[in-house]
Amino acid sequence: MSKNAIYAQSGGVTAVINASASAIIETARKYPKKIGKVYAGRNGIVGILKEDLIDTSEESPESIARLRTTPSGAFGSCRYKLKSIQESRDAYQRLVDVFATHDIGYFFYNGGGDSADTCLKIAQISKEMGYPVQAIHVPKTVDNDLPVTDNSPGFGSVAKYIATSVLEASLDVAAMSLTSTKVFILEVMGRHSGWIAAAGGMASNQGYPIPLIILFPEIAFDREQFIQRVQNSVSEHGQVSIIVSEGVTDKDGQFLTDQGRSDAFGNQQLGGVAPMIASIVNQDTGFKYHWAIADYLQRSARHIASKTDVEQAYAVGESAVLMALDGENSVMPAIVRTGNHPYQWEIGKAALTEVANIEKKLPGHFIDESGYGITQACRDYIAPLMEGEDYPEFRNGIPHYVQLVNKPVPRKLDTGFEI
Amino acid sequence: MSKNAIYAQSGGVTAVINASASAIIETARKYPKKIGKVYAGRNGIVGILKEDLIDTSEESPESIARLRTTPSGAFGSCRYKLKSIQESRDAYQRLVDVFATHDIGYFFYNGGGDSADTCLKIAQISKEMGYPVQAIHVPKTVDNDLPVTDNSPGFGSVAKYIATSVLEASLDVAAMSLTSTKVFILEVMGRHSGWIAAAGGMASNQGYPIPLIILFPEIAFDREQFIQRVQNSVSEHGQVSIIVSEGVTDKDGQFLTDQGRSDAFGNQQLGGVAPMIASIVNQDTGFKYHWAIADYLQRSARHIASKTDVEQAYAVGESAVLMALDGENSVMPAIVRTGNHPYQWEIGKAALTEVANIEKKLPGHFIDESGYGITQACRDYIAPLMEGEDYPEFRNGIPHYVQLVNKPVPRKLDTGFEI
Repeated sequence: MSKNAIYAQSGGVTAVINASASAIIETARKYPKKIGKVYAGRNGIVGILKEDLIDTSEESPESIARLRTTPSGAFGSCRYKLKSIQESRDAYQRLVDVFATHDIGYFFYNGGGDSADTCLKIAQISKEMGYPVQAIHVPKTVDNDLPVTDNSPGFGSVAKYIATSVLEASLDVAAMSLTSTKVFILEVMGRHSGWIAAAGGMASNQGYPIPLIILFPEIAFDREQFIQRVQNSVSEHGQVSIIVSEGVTDKDGQFLTDQGRSDAFGNQQLGGVAPMIASIVNQDTGFKYHWAIADYLQRSARHIASKTDVEQAYAVGESAVLMALDGENSVMPAIVRTGNHPYQWEIGKAALTEVANIEKKLPGHFIDESGYGITQACRDYIAPLMEGEDYPEFRNGIPHYVQLVNKPVPRKLDTGFEI
Repeated sequence: MSKNAIYAQSGGVTAVINASASAIIETARKYPKKIGKVYAGRNGIVGILKEDLIDTSEESPESIARLRTTPSGAFGSCRYKLKSIQESRDAYQRLVDVFATHDIGYFFYNGGGDSADTCLKIAQISKEMGYPVQAIHVPKTVDNDLPVTDNSPGFGSVAKYIATSVLEASLDVAAMSLTSTKVFILEVMGRHSGWIAAAGGMASNQGYPIPLIILFPEIAFDREQFIQRVQNSVSEHGQVSIIVSEGVTDKDGQFLTDQGRSDAFGNQQLGGVAPMIASIVNQDTGFKYHWAIADYLQRSARHIASKTDVEQAYAVGESAVLMALDGENSVMPAIVRTGNHPYQWEIGKAALTEVANIEKKLPGHFIDESGYGITQACRDYIAPLMEGEDYPEFRNGIPHYVQLVNKPVPRKLDTGFEI
């Protein structure tokens, strides 16, 4: 007899997390004898704790199919980290109560490192509490910092967006540099790891070289050395494009953005390392510059998603359901790279004990000796993840993204839960 | 007997100015008996003044065709404004010398208001100096501020990029707003007119409403009233996306960005009204926010160019050559809107005396009563300009843009020219 499933999205959303959601729901619908309804937590695990569930069976097959081409989290996500079982016991108890009340047998948690840890704890505690659910983690993060899996769905599309944007802006500067802008600065995400900054390096290749400087969070910012490179590039090429990670630090390991800045209103100005780098360039070289901060545009840019990324996001969702049906628990579908020339991949299986609380760093050998560029090994790794286009449908000149009904599941518990 | 032509790109580049270049060269090649070679000024008019010309006949038909899908200015542009004939007589004299030396009969100048003025002066002075050239202006500007023409090539693609970006980032915020970001701020170009800011309003429509606030340069910033709208939108919808023009001013007409800000290094921080708005929101509401500045990304984003925009950019280039062959002088091909439902357009002809030094403002009735949104009239105007997709070829996961040979034309003058 079938059990219901709960799906929840966690943490920062991506251009392709809904493709995983689409896969989970479409695959579950193929096994009605084993999986009843697929509920979604409204705004992720917070919705489960509040017993605020969405009945995805109310969505048409067309809507679920169109999730594949719709960015962001269609059921809502959240930033809410459960602490240890000791500290958050009441929350875990509540989750199990909701699971039991709604006859949940499967829990699919779609997120990064924190949610992998939560997913593992839920499997353990639900068993300990006498209502065991199969908890499967579905990888997602633009930061690409999940271990075991070759890459994380979400990263390939950000990489494609950043590399394309750096290329296009650099062509702009090339046309203007004689009499105007010589230095362009783009700030990218990745506070603790330079995966996305490295992707900016993909804008330049042997066939189409572009003068770039990458400021990685892994390399302490050296103003003098940096300015020297800017000077050299401008005198040699007339221009330079700088990709700066939001997480770049000084030699003491302090984020440059933590060095207080105030605006006209006397407020501490939050965020924005690009304008700081711009000011340094302006002060030390006098070169005319422009700077941009992509912020959310980079992780929500479904209009230029990577086809590989979309296919992998779908594949991990589909595999999550199949693993659940195989009786698996506390696992995560992982992308396994089986070939590079040509690129080949398959879905493997990772134990959450191997995934939870482990951060995959950008390998040292992906950054070149200069500290301002990427190596061929890095190119070989990133290139296939950016490969292929998978355009959404457009209407009225803009992407036509799906709007779900998101019908609530009637509450059954007479108690609430304080977040 | 045929005369040669000179083509030059002027001012800030766009995603489609090369489509106009492609049209001019392809069309000229169809009339070898009337038009000899098409030369291009390297970095625009500066290249003509320095007799630094590019021989476009060295480019393959494939390369010229691929200009249509390549952003920025393939021959280089510049910010260099010729003054009055009195003040800059030696420069005009030099231009005519270069024209005469290279047997130039046609001058195609691809730019905005300033270049229209220069183009007109060149027609006048060349005749006065006894070497008359036919000077045709080809419209281009993301600012959409050229008069007579219904719109300017370059604007439609920026509009499509901004509307799409606002939509995608707003979906991101919708998923995060319960526990995290509630306010998203995107700074857009348009220092003197709100055309691009208005395009941000196209992210929302009746079928797919999104809570937006637009800060136009035409409306003095009222902090209290603005914050009230932010509060209302967040309490009603849980979120709001703010599109702020770089040219927004205070009640005294001073640019907000001119209100000095200093960074950690004690430098005056240049540019960036988005972080100022973010600071205001943070101080007055405490809502968590994110902000982005698209800067050059918005005008170089050929990967999401408007098909209508590309076709119009090509059409004005083609018509410029045909007008020259008809013996026209001191004119500009203008886009004439002949229907809205369905959208229809054709190419008309504008006298440069009607174009030079006249700035088309955003009509007052395009901004709604609130002062923070756009009217249906504005929607009807912008919608067709964003319509259709015209994707570039991709290679290695990024757009494959053409690289021209840009072979120099041998210099014939023994004198140089100081810029």
